[in-house]
Amino acid sequence: MKTISGGVCAAKGFTAGGVHCGIRKNREKKDLALIFSQVPASAAAVYTTNLVKGAPLLVTKKNLADGVAQAVICNSGNANTCNANGIEIAEQMCELTAGALGISPADVVVASTGVIGQPMTIDPIAAGMAALKASLSETGSADAAEGIMTTDTKLKEIAVEFELGGKTCRIGGIAKGSGMIHPNMATMLVFITTDAAVSPAMLQKALSSDIADTFNMVSVDGDTSTNDMVTVLANGMAGNAPITEEGADFAAFMQALNTVTVYLCRRIAGDGEGATKLLECQVTGAKDTPTAKTVAKSVICSSLLKAAMFGADANWGRVLCAIGYSGADVDVNKIDVAFASKAGTIAVCQNGSGVDFSEEKAKEILTEEEIEILVSLNSGAASATAWGCDLTYDYVKINGDYRT
Amino acid sequence: MKTISGGVCAAKGFTAGGVHCGIRKNREKKDLALIFSQVPASAAAVYTTNLVKGAPLLVTKKNLADGVAQAVICNSGNANTCNANGIEIAEQMCELTAGALGISPADVVVASTGVIGQPMTIDPIAAGMAALKASLSETGSADAAEGIMTTDTKLKEIAVEFELGGKTCRIGGIAKGSGMIHPNMATMLVFITTDAAVSPAMLQKALSSDIADTFNMVSVDGDTSTNDMVTVLANGMAGNAPITEEGADFAAFMQALNTVTVYLCRRIAGDGEGATKLLECQVTGAKDTPTAKTVAKSVICSSLLKAAMFGADANWGRVLCAIGYSGADVDVNKIDVAFASKAGTIAVCQNGSGVDFSEEKAKEILTEEEIEILVSLNSGAASATAWGCDLTYDYVKINGDYRT
Repeated sequence: MKTISGGVCAAKGFTAGGVHCGIRKNREKKDLALIFSQVPASAAAVYTTNLVKGAPLLVTKKNLADGVAQAVICNSGNANTCNANGIEIAEQMCELTAGALGISPADVVVASTGVIGQPMTIDPIAAGMAALKASLSETGSADAAEGIMTTDTKLKEIAVEFELGGKTCRIGGIAKGSGMIHPNMATMLVFITTDAAVSPAMLQKALSSDIADTFNMVSVDGDTSTNDMVTVLANGMAGNAPITEEGADFAAFMQALNTVTVYLCRRIAGDGEGATKLLECQVTGAKDTPTAKTVAKSVICSSLLKAAMFGADANWGRVLCAIGYSGADVDVNKIDVAFASKAGTIAVCQNGSGVDFSEEKAKEILTEEEIEILVSLNSGAASATAWGCDLTYDYVKINGDYRT
Repeated sequence: MKTISGGVCAAKGFTAGGVHCGIRKNREKKDLALIFSQVPASAAAVYTTNLVKGAPLLVTKKNLADGVAQAVICNSGNANTCNANGIEIAEQMCELTAGALGISPADVVVASTGVIGQPMTIDPIAAGMAALKASLSETGSADAAEGIMTTDTKLKEIAVEFELGGKTCRIGGIAKGSGMIHPNMATMLVFITTDAAVSPAMLQKALSSDIADTFNMVSVDGDTSTNDMVTVLANGMAGNAPITEEGADFAAFMQALNTVTVYLCRRIAGDGEGATKLLECQVTGAKDTPTAKTVAKSVICSSLLKAAMFGADANWGRVLCAIGYSGADVDVNKIDVAFASKAGTIAVCQNGSGVDFSEEKAKEILTEEEIEILVSLNSGAASATAWGCDLTYDYVKINGDYRT
């Protein structure tokens, strides 16, 4: 497997594009994105578990009932959520897209991200559709990735090449993260494309299995969005023998998918609102996987630990505290904790009690941009990883007045 | 019932005091507090549910097994948690206190608050015990309240007078809150004294019942401390007929206790680390009390909403979002939301969708120091209230480098 360029256009038969249509006031920022497959594709998706669901998710769910889609339309600047006419707007977005591309409205995935409960009209999208269609190209992944960004500061895009039965396949994705990121069952907005041939059922199986260890292990601020969604379109243009059951091909596809999703998880966490650092908590020695996951996620969700990481302060008591209230059944007297980064590794706690360590070395390690928090529970063989970011002045600044 | 002065010394037979003994470097800040009852008192307590528990809690739990105590000793500046010699230190604190006061070590409540996992010696406490005993007085409540403060900026103290069977009784308390505040079954440090005669069993019943609606409905940052504890000492010196069962006297006592605890909850939330505003979420129309509580607590725990309140931004979509991911079973299409303060009340959401409102008026309301978030679920008759605070630059600043 190797990393390649092209993002969601790396897979054969996919084009993408993005434009500024006027939903956002800032004309410098694209606010509408489109992804198109030459041929109908198997489609799978996972959605937020928030009871308050964005209207676009409800429409997408209906459209994907047959496991087939051919295009993705997504706007930023307005979440189209808690609006009385939300469903109507989302359906109009599908109809406009379908009309422009000559496909069925039922083969369109629709998504929105931005402020919740803000009145929305279809006008800017209708006016911008011709330009959006014209923007479609094989090098348009970055434009689409920009079109779905809100407070994201970094474009999130990746693609890899892999083999299935001697055929070269490609899979790539773009993502939008930043704030209100604490996915559960699904996540933020992630659009993945592949030219591998995979049946809709196996594609859904691969996605549902993957997100449990990837997007559901990311948290920026503990807030589960109303509009989280991950979709995968697989158009089969690589020519591999279609994957219709588990086996070596499915495993190879899962591995390629996981490479894409883990990369996007790290990008989303590291570019959390206001973040200066990516935090990765690796839990080992757990009695079972749920325990490892609960502990890892509790640690990266602690506001106190996140603030300490911002200050490069090796305040490991907050790691122990977060493990203690996580709800996981652990023996606190067996816990070891260490901090690591490319500047080195330092043990700070053994058997639940502090050990002498160099504050100077710890500061050096924690001043890096990617920090690993290593937790050994010493009670079994299960492990898990969770990703988060530090809590900074800028998180408060961005969210103190997000709407203006 | 009326509010009176005196804090934990308002009840007959109680004295209190506080000194700087040297656990903290800052000599201007008291770091050791003592509360003493002339006679042995009924005692009740609730403790943190964090699996990592401070050594003082374990010693206190043992000492209160017989439902009787006569003194409370508490230091700030070191949590005496995750230290290999923690139990030893906590027991020495009881012995030194008992020796100074001429009581049994088993009648001492011991507590600590500060950094977790910091080595601690008994030396400053041993050296300061004579001065601490000498500081005991009937006007010493404020000194004790200062002695237990960490990053608290405001002293938290209250007392009320009430009647039981024609006898005037008093109940008062002091509290330490600030950060790592998200109690569960118990909370931060709160010491309450009363001269009402109440059996240990009824005192525990009153406390355990009360905290479910008071301290357990407070959150500053979602982090449940390792050292949370609330204790009540009832020395009976008011001369009322002892409360040994439910009835009118127990109800009157519960009401007085609740007045003290709600006041302290509001003080703790409003003085959360870095806070500029007290947030109170009132949920009504829930189908049952657990639903109302879950919704209220989810709203005041949302980092996004907390940051919006800091910025006086009426971003009500974040209220809906927090209700949606709370796990409570609610009909989102029935939810009404309004913001209120002493500057007025403004409806922002009805039946789950936005309504037109004056942003100017909303800003005026949200600029006040005490904000009410009013949520009507319109699905029943149950209600609940939760208290929190805004998320500010100062929270990040304080916790980015707490240990130095």
